Amino acid sequence: MKPNLQTPKGFRDFLPAEKRKRDYVIAKVKEIFERFGFEPLETPTLEYASLLLGKYGAEADKLVYTFKDRGGRELGLRYDQTVPTARVLAQYSQQLPKYFRRYQIQNVYRADKPQKGRFREFAQCDIDIFGSRSLLADAEILACTYFAFKNVGYQSIKLKLNDRQILFETLKPYVTSEVSILSIIQSVDKLDKNDQAAVVTELGKKGLPPESAKKALTAIQKAQETTNLKQIMHGAAALGIPQENLEFSPTTARGLDYYTGMIFEVIVPEYSGGSLGGGGRYDNLIGQLGGVETPAVGIAFGFDRMVEAADQLGIIPKDTSAIKVLVTVFGEESLEKSLQCAQQLRQAGITTELYPAVDKLPDQLKYANKKGVPWVVIIGEEEAKQNKVTLKNMTNGEQSTENAEAVIKRVGQSTD
Amino acid sequence: MKPNLQTPKGFRDFLPAEKRKRDYVIAKVKEIFERFGFEPLETPTLEYASLLLGKYGAEADKLVYTFKDRGGRELGLRYDQTVPTARVLAQYSQQLPKYFRRYQIQNVYRADKPQKGRFREFAQCDIDIFGSRSLLADAEILACTYFAFKNVGYQSIKLKLNDRQILFETLKPYVTSEVSILSIIQSVDKLDKNDQAAVVTELGKKGLPPESAKKALTAIQKAQETTNLKQIMHGAAALGIPQENLEFSPTTARGLDYYTGMIFEVIVPEYSGGSLGGGGRYDNLIGQLGGVETPAVGIAFGFDRMVEAADQLGIIPKDTSAIKVLVTVFGEESLEKSLQCAQQLRQAGITTELYPAVDKLPDQLKYANKKGVPWVVIIGEEEAKQNKVTLKNMTNGEQSTENAEAVIKRVGQSTD
Repeated sequence: MKPNLQTPKGFRDFLPAEKRKRDYVIAKVKEIFERFGFEPLETPTLEYASLLLGKYGAEADKLVYTFKDRGGRELGLRYDQTVPTARVLAQYSQQLPKYFRRYQIQNVYRADKPQKGRFREFAQCDIDIFGSRSLLADAEILACTYFAFKNVGYQSIKLKLNDRQILFETLKPYVTSEVSILSIIQSVDKLDKNDQAAVVTELGKKGLPPESAKKALTAIQKAQETTNLKQIMHGAAALGIPQENLEFSPTTARGLDYYTGMIFEVIVPEYSGGSLGGGGRYDNLIGQLGGVETPAVGIAFGFDRMVEAADQLGIIPKDTSAIKVLVTVFGEESLEKSLQCAQQLRQAGITTELYPAVDKLPDQLKYANKKGVPWVVIIGEEEAKQNKVTLKNMTNGEQSTENAEAVIKRVGQSTD
Repeated sequence: MKPNLQTPKGFRDFLPAEKRKRDYVIAKVKEIFERFGFEPLETPTLEYASLLLGKYGAEADKLVYTFKDRGGRELGLRYDQTVPTARVLAQYSQQLPKYFRRYQIQNVYRADKPQKGRFREFAQCDIDIFGSRSLLADAEILACTYFAFKNVGYQSIKLKLNDRQILFETLKPYVTSEVSILSIIQSVDKLDKNDQAAVVTELGKKGLPPESAKKALTAIQKAQETTNLKQIMHGAAALGIPQENLEFSPTTARGLDYYTGMIFEVIVPEYSGGSLGGGGRYDNLIGQLGGVETPAVGIAFGFDRMVEAADQLGIIPKDTSAIKVLVTVFGEESLEKSLQCAQQLRQAGITTELYPAVDKLPDQLKYANKKGVPWVVIIGEEEAKQNKVTLKNMTNGEQSTENAEAVIKRVGQSTD
């Protein structure tokens, strides 16, 4: 079998520059998750297929990667993080705290048709509070979400809130034997991207007369906050979300069927690629999945989009942890000095690459240049004799010969 | 199909306490990898089966998880990080730097028989320098390894070094038509765990007469460093590894066949579970795997063992990022103050959980106690009126009523 030297379609490599961006966003959100008391959880990539199948609907079942292992066990690859967490809640119920707040950042796998922005392996990033029906838990999720986005560095963050109860009650009069409430909600959810006429047409195709559809849409647009939602928003504000970042949005509907109360989406208006995350309260799902009745509220961050938006908006620092200085190496005489200097730079916390071969100086400089390394330390025979080093600024080409200590200080303080 | 609410055999959940330990060790080694100029790489979980099979030997091929997807493609789960990296080196050869130093920390999958300390999914943690035949690259790998272990906090770290050339040359005279050089090397590798007599017996079974076996073992024990190895050790010392942590060990052999030059193992003597990592130079493997001839040197950290050793030796700080303070909540009057206080604590960088429900005080204290939270902030009606908060030290039970600011300062400065 001739090996295929490509990634399978829908799967990605992350080379260093891209991986760094992802790691940056993860580090920033994780910092806030931790500060809000969310605890890390990791579950295996493979689960019994019987756990995964029949949980996401018949269409989604086709997207679960399943196979039989050599021992005849039917296994499946993680499709989301909610079902494995439901298993964890059932399996370790004696061990876990009464109110379990966890975060989980792992890859999931879907045998989906690959297309722009849709992959067969992608990261999910979830926070949830399990075990509490209190609106305080909803407010905590909102506050943690807001501060996580803020910590990544997005300038304007809008949390658009609604309550599934508003949708259920306002739209109930329009339900017919042909068009269910969840079907209407799914069309309403598209008001974000499509104009009202398009949604009326869609509802028409589903069997709702245009007059009814128009009335339904007008009614939902005029709907008022529920008491619950007011309390949640009040709590979220007390937890530090500025008023202008919280918005009641009666047409926000969320696609998933399982929400039972508050729902919300995160929008960064400068980014045109869609919402960057969404969630809500789902008090029945965990019990259905894992057998132990457990109210829950949470959010799934749209991780790929978050990275794309952060990149487009230029909020990921360029030098996060890229190489700051390259130390060149030459023959016998100066080699040891080069090694010692690399060690001193690293001890000072400076990201340093020692050129890993003895090549000509122009080759070493070319290498640094190509990699975008801002500083190069040159220790030739002359420098070694004088016990000095030459520091070259790769941005402007300037160079000066100084003591190693002075150079380390200068590089350490530079913001390149 | 009744769902199986267990993890499949050989697969693990990491609940928060365990996950935190793993995250701690990862953060500590990653910090040093970055400082040494290693760059992060991520490859997909699934590869074409044709890439993975035939690379690890016939026995290992049976341990690769493979399956056919719905589109008829033969896919396989990552078995190690070296083969996918060989693919990356071939696929992106135009894009990658001439000398590519990368680190990679991802899970790998092996359909192995589960047993103590052996799992079907486990993390691998590799650093490698690709593209350089220079001994400087070997020295860099050693130095980065030493400082990574030091940064985790292990007190005594021994790098045991050898050169495959020493083994090849010293043992060549003992090779017979029945016993190959690699077979002898594999037995020599066991001198670490077994006594000489046992190794002689093993070699005897392989067909080497006891007299020859004894001579071979004596010869290898008396072998001297090669010039290459001396230069590598000298370089490693210049890069900051103290002399006492580097040790020439002519009987260190490493099990894998593909090493071509320097080989080494990392030992923490206080830990009895075996070596915590090993590696060496392998100049032919990448070319064989990916088609582009690429010298390489690197190490695979034994991540599970590193976590176990760090845990046993008590070097993982207990409070890494666990919850430091629980803010209790009560009815109307004081609720908003509780939320504001939680927000202030978090703004001060303190890991804070807001109790996510309105329960009785003893229940909230019990919850904090069970979770091992060292501080509880209580804001009842009385405190709210006075604009103060009560801080309870859960270790000794002491409590005092103060301004929120004073409490935040105290909690922030405490080392609990």
